[in-house]
Amino acid sequence: MKATVIRKSRFNAAHRLYVKSWSEEENNKVFGLCNNPNFHGHNYHLEVSVTGEIDPVTGYVIDLKIVKDLIQSEVIEPFDHRNLNLDTKEFENLIPTAENIAMVIYNKLRAKMEERFDISVKLFETERNIVVFPATTM
Amino acid sequence: MKATVIRKSRFNAAHRLYVKSWSEEENNKVFGLCNNPNFHGHNYHLEVSVTGEIDPVTGYVIDLKIVKDLIQSEVIEPFDHRNLNLDTKEFENLIPTAENIAMVIYNKLRAKMEERFDISVKLFETERNIVVFPATTM
Amino acid sequence: MKATVIRKSRFNAAHRLYVKSWSEEENNKVFGLCNNPNFHGHNYHLEVSVTGEIDPVTGYVIDLKIVKDLIQSEVIEPFDHRNLNLDTKEFENLIPTAENIAMVIYNKLRAKMEERFDISVKLFETERNIVVFPATTM
Amino acid sequence: MKATVIRKSRFNAAHRLYVKSWSEEENNKVFGLCNNPNFHGHNYHLEVSVTGEIDPVTGYVIDLKIVKDLIQSEVIEPFDHRNLNLDTKEFENLIPTAENIAMVIYNKLRAKMEERFDISVKLFETERNIVVFPATTM
Amino acid sequence: MKATVIRKSRFNAAHRLYVKSWSEEENNKVFGLCNNPNFHGHNYHLEVSVTGEIDPVTGYVIDLKIVKDLIQSEVIEPFDHRNLNLDTKEFENLIPTAENIAMVIYNKLRAKMEERFDISVKLFETERNIVVFPATTM
Amino acid sequence: MKATVIRKSRFNAAHRLYVKSWSEEENNKVFGLCNNPNFHGHNYHLEVSVTGEIDPVTGYVIDLKIVKDLIQSEVIEPFDHRNLNLDTKEFENLIPTAENIAMVIYNKLRAKMEERFDISVKLFETERNIVVFPATTM
Repeated sequence: MKATVIRKSRFNAAHRLYVKSWSEEENNKVFGLCNNPNFHGHNYHLEVSVTGEIDPVTGYVIDLKIVKDLIQSEVIEPFDHRNLNLDTKEFENLIPTAENIAMVIYNKLRAKMEERFDISVKLFETERNIVVFPATTM
Repeated sequence: MKATVIRKSRFNAAHRLYVKSWSEEENNKVFGLCNNPNFHGHNYHLEVSVTGEIDPVTGYVIDLKIVKDLIQSEVIEPFDHRNLNLDTKEFENLIPTAENIAMVIYNKLRAKMEERFDISVKLFETERNIVVFPATTM
Repeated sequence: MKATVIRKSRFNAAHRLYVKSWSEEENNKVFGLCNNPNFHGHNYHLEVSVTGEIDPVTGYVIDLKIVKDLIQSEVIEPFDHRNLNLDTKEFENLIPTAENIAMVIYNKLRAKMEERFDISVKLFETERNIVVFPATTM
Repeated sequence: MKATVIRKSRFNAAHRLYVKSWSEEENNKVFGLCNNPNFHGHNYHLEVSVTGEIDPVTGYVIDLKIVKDLIQSEVIEPFDHRNLNLDTKEFENLIPTAENIAMVIYNKLRAKMEERFDISVKLFETERNIVVFPATTM
Repeated sequence: MKATVIRKSRFNAAHRLYVKSWSEEENNKVFGLCNNPNFHGHNYHLEVSVTGEIDPVTGYVIDLKIVKDLIQSEVIEPFDHRNLNLDTKEFENLIPTAENIAMVIYNKLRAKMEERFDISVKLFETERNIVVFPATTM
Repeated sequence: MKATVIRKSRFNAAHRLYVKSWSEEENNKVFGLCNNPNFHGHNYHLEVSVTGEIDPVTGYVIDLKIVKDLIQSEVIEPFDHRNLNLDTKEFENLIPTAENIAMVIYNKLRAKMEERFDISVKLFETERNIVVFPATTM
């Protein structure tokens, strides 16, 4: 009797999209305004899904407080009110696109969650631009 | 040519999370404020998805009015403006966690829907806590 | 240079609408399903607005953390995951309609906020039923 | 390292649901108010998902501007502020149900997207009635 | 002790914006795509606010079921799934802009509500275009 | 016959809150994480309201395209994907709190709008923190 539980959260951060080895011209062509050298920012909305057996006694797949606390320590504390390019080690050598941020969050949470759970990450960079990692069929 | 159609609905209910055979202390440790003896409550938001062939004549997978009426008789009438623990037979011996409520709704609808349809239930207990039954990959 | 700042918050509670001195029949006529003796519940969404001068140094009308903390101590702690009828002194002799809940929250916050601020409370009982106190022109 | 990126968009259109070869009575029975001969309309909300490898250099699955431009030319321009039954060739002989609109949008975008991408379409006819094409498990 | 209660509702309709006495060219210049001769449509979201004294016995400004029923008979029944230009007498000689629709709804409801209540209408033509009637200060 | 029309828009920007003449300690005490020297950012949601007479011929208070274009030139172009502290002259000597951003936007739009219109600005810094300028009564 498997179910999927989802916990929503949020963080606000600044970022800039550019490839260090490219020229300013190449970066502007690919990343446009997102390459603004002084950064811009977003309210990132995050959904973390956890799939597992429903415990027959507690009726829980997992206590969502555990998921909430993990999101707090692994995502909110290091990323909230930060500059992703300058203030985090995760994006020192990785472009903070929504795809990469979702992948990084997935990997950080995957390392801390018990093996018996499948997890997935959905990240809203804006209301209109969203990423799911790993890939889904919608 | 299969598609998935989704119908959203809502109901408001009171509930309390606790295991009858556990001590008050154990229940508080696992369920925290959700174990309040006088109950608390939620506006539950429900999404029922139905997957099937698109009828080449009507262009419908299923008339959503059928789904709406089933949700009305199987979910809204028994659960809306009720105390899930005290007023329903479904949760007489089952903890009304979001996982179990989603499973119960799925089973009730599954029993009434034609076999040719696959169905799925997504239940929002709050804006931030959500369950999908059966398990999905997001 | 006055502005209005608004802070949103949420709490989940059970309640029942009925007039103690009325017959069951009268209560059912006026309050319908909301008179369910075993209670039902809601995710209440709350918006507290504070109007005042923009401080020319800090650029703040008020540090919203002050508002957030007041909402926490005056509203969330006493009402969240509670039964408004049974667990609170505020509604011991006052029907917990959305109007009265909004008025009670307004009075509690008003007593704690400095006189130089005007405040207002908007309470969403459901997505579709909302109250503003004191009265507004929308 | 596959991820799914989603782009949201919107268009406003009029439509009428009816089978030309059926009697008025049959159409009313199946389509009800949706068979109003003078049409009615919706704000359609559209989500297009694209699944593919994350480019290790750019950190993109696909530049969402490409998806945005495709939605503009294939969906917004032909359908926005139109009467789907009278103003489009796609629905000249196809009932513009949400299922068929989602399938038509999928087919139009599929024909323009590179083979290495999997795509999916989610269409909100109203806040409460939604279609996903191809079928999903939610 | 006055409060304002708000009830949300929805209807879906087709419309066309044009001045009958103007040339096609003038209409296109002012109304653009909204002048499409075959109509387009919207999911209109409606908020009706009612301001009055809180009844000290019931705790209600007004039973929202009264407001809901009035919206049903005065707005939903005549306008939902209709063509505002062709199917309604209200817009036979009045352009169905959001401003005029809001004014018409206000006038219809005002005529049916007791004098002791102040009312106001907020109409969302789309998520981004909204009208309040009578004028407000936001 | 006055009505109020509202146009919603969005921009994404980085900012930092601090008083240049204060010590780091003072700034941290008042602005907390918002004083992060490398900036953080937000998806700002903006609502601009315009109040005026409904034109008896067109049924418009104002063509919302005029409002949309003004927001584009006065707000989106200078602020979107920018660092408010470093990339704009408006906040060179003014702390970019939500209050001040709303006031600046109000002043810029007020200077460009005809005198016969009253205007108002509502700015969402996050889903939970909102400012209205000039002050309102909610």
